[in-house]
Amino acid sequence: MYKLIKQEGRAKRGELHTVHGVIQTPVFMNVGTAAAIKGAVASEDLEGIKTQVELSNTYHLHVRPGDEVIKKMGGLHKFMAWDKPILTDSGGFQVFSLASLRKIKEEGVYFQSHIDGRKIFMGPEESMRIQSNLASTIAMAFDECPSSKAEREYVQASVERTTRWLERCRAEMNRLNEAEDTINKKQMLFGINQGAIFSDIRIEHAKILSQMELDGYAVGGLAVGESHEEMYYILEETVPYLPADKPTYLMGVGTPANILEGVERGVDFFDCVYPSRNGRHGHLYTNQGKINLFNAKYELDERPIEEGCGCPACRRYSRGYIRHLLKAKEMLGMRLCVLHNLYFYNTMMEEIRDALGEGNFAAYKKKKLEGMAT
Amino acid sequence: MYKLIKQEGRAKRGELHTVHGVIQTPVFMNVGTAAAIKGAVASEDLEGIKTQVELSNTYHLHVRPGDEVIKKMGGLHKFMAWDKPILTDSGGFQVFSLASLRKIKEEGVYFQSHIDGRKIFMGPEESMRIQSNLASTIAMAFDECPSSKAEREYVQASVERTTRWLERCRAEMNRLNEAEDTINKKQMLFGINQGAIFSDIRIEHAKILSQMELDGYAVGGLAVGESHEEMYYILEETVPYLPADKPTYLMGVGTPANILEGVERGVDFFDCVYPSRNGRHGHLYTNQGKINLFNAKYELDERPIEEGCGCPACRRYSRGYIRHLLKAKEMLGMRLCVLHNLYFYNTMMEEIRDALGEGNFAAYKKKKLEGMAT
Repeated sequence: MYKLIKQEGRAKRGELHTVHGVIQTPVFMNVGTAAAIKGAVASEDLEGIKTQVELSNTYHLHVRPGDEVIKKMGGLHKFMAWDKPILTDSGGFQVFSLASLRKIKEEGVYFQSHIDGRKIFMGPEESMRIQSNLASTIAMAFDECPSSKAEREYVQASVERTTRWLERCRAEMNRLNEAEDTINKKQMLFGINQGAIFSDIRIEHAKILSQMELDGYAVGGLAVGESHEEMYYILEETVPYLPADKPTYLMGVGTPANILEGVERGVDFFDCVYPSRNGRHGHLYTNQGKINLFNAKYELDERPIEEGCGCPACRRYSRGYIRHLLKAKEMLGMRLCVLHNLYFYNTMMEEIRDALGEGNFAAYKKKKLEGMAT
Repeated sequence: MYKLIKQEGRAKRGELHTVHGVIQTPVFMNVGTAAAIKGAVASEDLEGIKTQVELSNTYHLHVRPGDEVIKKMGGLHKFMAWDKPILTDSGGFQVFSLASLRKIKEEGVYFQSHIDGRKIFMGPEESMRIQSNLASTIAMAFDECPSSKAEREYVQASVERTTRWLERCRAEMNRLNEAEDTINKKQMLFGINQGAIFSDIRIEHAKILSQMELDGYAVGGLAVGESHEEMYYILEETVPYLPADKPTYLMGVGTPANILEGVERGVDFFDCVYPSRNGRHGHLYTNQGKINLFNAKYELDERPIEEGCGCPACRRYSRGYIRHLLKAKEMLGMRLCVLHNLYFYNTMMEEIRDALGEGNFAAYKKKKLEGMAT
């Protein structure tokens, strides 16, 4: 299902064939936590900003509106009116970062909802059932994401449990994909490599994962507090032990520079809230670096956010107008900024794919990083 | 510049020719207070929801970003990237409803900004200069809007001052329209009829206004606390004394029923925050009456807000999805609801014009009101 089109060093240009269409990689997935991208961006807007994959959060949708509701509404694609690929995370990361009073046991995690304090249990089987109800294109295995500061002994035990959970995930997904009332019977499963910043644990785990027939392999537990250098080092050490003929996904990463470094180290899939979150705060990405539209110098600026940009904001509106909207707390300001930032990320991925196709990714990366540093 | 195409009783089907294009009347103007319609609706969205005229608020734009800023940016049309007609109010109504510590004198009104408490003075000349800086298609005269509960003696004196202010507005606008650096040298001026609920004061004022050559005539000071019956009565008494060969504008009105009653009494122009404000709260207009999407019964409702509606929300999204967005406080929910409500209003105005053109407005009105009452 994954086709490796071209390689430059470890960087991969590939495509993943799914039941909802082909994903050209490297790809940046656009995060729509609660079945919508924050900033009043609708599924129909995604077509104009080059989005290939939408990413929704299992934990949020399980809590509200409930995965059973979405199943009854025909699955996430029909619910949000988006027919291209959707990836759902496992819910694990939110359980560990949002929920309170959590208790991790062999069977799974007991915790309280961050919305109403309701007691919830989630284990591998529950995560698979929820994701099957959502009927996403790609489901993520339920894992524990230990802190980058965790002790070696804790990380070792946690990773072993994550492997046992992955076996249970796979068994449950196989069962669900054959069940009669399953909406997407071709749901894919990606496993997740963990191990904090202990490269030997990461490598050992990668080797074990590689022997399990999975649709893709994620590197999780990075960009959670460690330095960029530590993250790049872990990628360099670990990715070579993951199957090159399957997609590699670096979870929750990152800045444009992080993505360029990740691609160089063999990553196919990325996702991050930065472009939408920064957009809502008036922080905008350009090829000459980030700009903060709240800065007074943009008050009378008639230029678009970035000259030559083809996004819906730049095609029609000026920096001065968008700055005014942000200052007046008009939602439209946030919408335009989020559209621009996602377009910037998605366009960069397109450029990366083109550069890889032409065999000049290294030169492209150097030039892009230099431009953004000015 | 105003062409009366057809009449049915007092109801008028007309068109107003402006420097920014022709306005077909009766028309509902879509309120974008701070140069944007609340709910993340952009000027490019207005083309898809049948908006003819955008209305912005002079007071808000004077306070932020400042009318001088907008003038430097080329005027309101260029600023918000909308090339069709824009009407600006005079700022008077906001001065009386929002600002604190106001003091009304013959020369104008002294008050404090509701944003930073800064002391501001606004009189007829200031209002005209601000509106000339904004370069709207239609400017409104600076008036006082007395409370519907005000004493007769106060109202009488206030209306006389409003007339004197109108003379000053007209002189200042004539001067500005001939000034070299004025952006829109063909800016139109509408005068405003006042008189609270005293029909004889209203009539006397209407007669005086009629003798002044203005581009249009508004009825102000209604829908500010009096009953619907009082409002309809004042319209019946007053509109016949305003020139039928000029557009009539009922300010700040109202519900779909109010608009139908207003059209019947000879009104061409309407504006109101209801469709956008109600939309942001999940209250939606349909031909079968209003619905509240927060109601639990819509949780699994796969139908659009209204079957057969051609708005951007109904063409793609379900009640169940939009309800989820509203409950999850996703801005997209508000955006879709505002788009629907404005489309509903603008479509009703289109139906009204068609009915007037075919000479069956009375039948249309009856049927529409019955449908919405179910």
